[in-house]
Amino acid sequence: MKSTSQFLRQLGFTGPGVLVNEHQARANIRSMAEKARRAGVTFRPHFKTHQSADVGQWFAQEGVTAITVSSVSMAEYFACHGWRDITIAFLLNPLQWPRIESLAHKLAEQGGQLGLTVDSPAAAATLAERPELPLRVWLKIDTGYGRTGVPWQNGVTMQEIVEALGPHPLTGLLTHSGDSYQASSLADLNSIWILTRQRLETVSQNLGGEKQLSLSVGDTPCCHSIEDLSGVQEIRPGNFVFFDLMQWSQGVCQTQELAAAAVCPVVGLYPERGHMVVHGGAVHLSRESLVGEKGKTVFGYLGTLSRRDDGSVSQQVLTDFPVVSLSQEHGTVEISAQNQTIFESFEIGDLVVVWPVHSCLTCDLSSEYISEQGNVLTKK
Amino acid sequence: MKSTSQFLRQLGFTGPGVLVNEHQARANIRSMAEKARRAGVTFRPHFKTHQSADVGQWFAQEGVTAITVSSVSMAEYFACHGWRDITIAFLLNPLQWPRIESLAHKLAEQGGQLGLTVDSPAAAATLAERPELPLRVWLKIDTGYGRTGVPWQNGVTMQEIVEALGPHPLTGLLTHSGDSYQASSLADLNSIWILTRQRLETVSQNLGGEKQLSLSVGDTPCCHSIEDLSGVQEIRPGNFVFFDLMQWSQGVCQTQELAAAAVCPVVGLYPERGHMVVHGGAVHLSRESLVGEKGKTVFGYLGTLSRRDDGSVSQQVLTDFPVVSLSQEHGTVEISAQNQTIFESFEIGDLVVVWPVHSCLTCDLSSEYISEQGNVLTKK
Repeated sequence: MKSTSQFLRQLGFTGPGVLVNEHQARANIRSMAEKARRAGVTFRPHFKTHQSADVGQWFAQEGVTAITVSSVSMAEYFACHGWRDITIAFLLNPLQWPRIESLAHKLAEQGGQLGLTVDSPAAAATLAERPELPLRVWLKIDTGYGRTGVPWQNGVTMQEIVEALGPHPLTGLLTHSGDSYQASSLADLNSIWILTRQRLETVSQNLGGEKQLSLSVGDTPCCHSIEDLSGVQEIRPGNFVFFDLMQWSQGVCQTQELAAAAVCPVVGLYPERGHMVVHGGAVHLSRESLVGEKGKTVFGYLGTLSRRDDGSVSQQVLTDFPVVSLSQEHGTVEISAQNQTIFESFEIGDLVVVWPVHSCLTCDLSSEYISEQGNVLTKK
Repeated sequence: MKSTSQFLRQLGFTGPGVLVNEHQARANIRSMAEKARRAGVTFRPHFKTHQSADVGQWFAQEGVTAITVSSVSMAEYFACHGWRDITIAFLLNPLQWPRIESLAHKLAEQGGQLGLTVDSPAAAATLAERPELPLRVWLKIDTGYGRTGVPWQNGVTMQEIVEALGPHPLTGLLTHSGDSYQASSLADLNSIWILTRQRLETVSQNLGGEKQLSLSVGDTPCCHSIEDLSGVQEIRPGNFVFFDLMQWSQGVCQTQELAAAAVCPVVGLYPERGHMVVHGGAVHLSRESLVGEKGKTVFGYLGTLSRRDDGSVSQQVLTDFPVVSLSQEHGTVEISAQNQTIFESFEIGDLVVVWPVHSCLTCDLSSEYISEQGNVLTKK
């Protein structure tokens, strides 16, 4: 624990923050990029996890030129940082047309293109009102997750949407199989992957006819776990760049693949009730939780970090040290009686690492990251 | 619903945001300020709920000169906006001493003072190393909540802390009775209030001897509900400025007293499964939840807003329209079969209001607010 604290202090942490393991994040990116190349599919990573221009450059260095975002403001941010091929994989909000139009023109002028997502005739009709706008249009399909998208069996609505689009041709079908985040085995993930692909193919045949529609899928559990990603044209995973405890507890990633951690100062020690309080609350970690031992709600686990001789970082997840409650700024870590010796080694002013349950939300809450090399990484 | 959407569009909303009902927030502030005056206690409101320089001015206009914050960075922000008497009601993190020292000098030069909070001899000892620093020192006492603070019965540790402080005198005892947020009746709140005061008095007599220690308490449920706040020297409520569904469901506030709401565009309509999807996810609302009807997890309820003739806003909470699931950017609103007619009145591009479960977290996630007058309110 002491060596983790020293490691973090050397990097310049003094308060709550986020450490990004650049070496590991780059390895995660490289691995996914190579997998996409092997399968012959376009790799259009989702940038909502990191929201960082600097981390974006690590993708660019692996040959990535096309990206996914989940809001207009995120698209604007990455357009400002040189990205020209951007899909907003979030349903079109017609109130934002002025900003979307401006962005579409800007990207087109630079030889790029903006992709939008629709799942209703009403939204599609607002595209038809802008016949000249340079855009790619994706039809969101619900292949079983049940959040957004036209249900894959509902051909009538799909036809209405295609007609409502007017002069805009459909680029392809886009789906997010978010149920993969609840899968409990590789076999489950495999079933979700196959079903997703089959359903998209069925829709494509019914809707596209002669015309080949692109199929775009995107969730980290499937994209990371399925060996052969062929059969679709595009993958859009995002979380894999950092992973998190959700992926780790699901068996999708290994401890060493985790690449973003919350850093928290120890501010209170209460051995009489087995609690340590850190400056790391809901405004740092988010209130995303997982179910830990004995059905306990867990908002993160402490970890250890240490530098290897080659400069890379060796990591551990300590399930004996769960964050069991959060308020706005406080996080309470439970330390069981059998770990009292370790407890006694903590001091006020130490820094600890908390592995987040959901890295996308923890990273969203931070205004910047610090890498294991001590570099500050800017973000949206 | 249509009139709510029009009302929000007139204010300039086009995407996710936060509406602050200035008229009501000012009334909430005035009411608490008057109550404090009646009881003869110092009103040192907690600014972590709004984190806004503009909202801070509404407090100043009610005569408030002393404030509470929960981090060094929040203290720095409000110091930049003219506040000179600031207590950081969060345990001292010794790694932040350089920033704290600089802030303490800055406030003292302006005739103000910085207050710090400690609950360990280790933290107190770092104060003793800075004998000349102009500071107020508060000892955090745990009167039963069990989060931070020296347990009120533990006189030995308190004595050690006082000794460790060296030349710094103790200003007073500070506690947060967070258990009041779980109270189910006014009688419960009354018990918590009385017990808190009694325990602080006991500590004060044992520790202070002849010297009068200030007693500082602060939680919205008690400060709002207890009629007579005398018997302590200072109150530090924060949430009352906006309130939220947690306070509303607990019976602490009325619908009309809610003063901050998330604004979300409707992006998806799925009548076949009774779902509406809005752009308002975990990065807008936070994942704070309450238990709704039939034990359902609820992340917010839709509401209505309409302008009265005098310019003020009439408000409703619609428990028939709960937000039942959240992902990073999506919020799913459940609309039951009996409300199908209302459902049919929604359109893609409408704006809806979602009352947040915990306004402190929802507000923390927003970069600014818009008032019902259409004014943009800056925040940290």
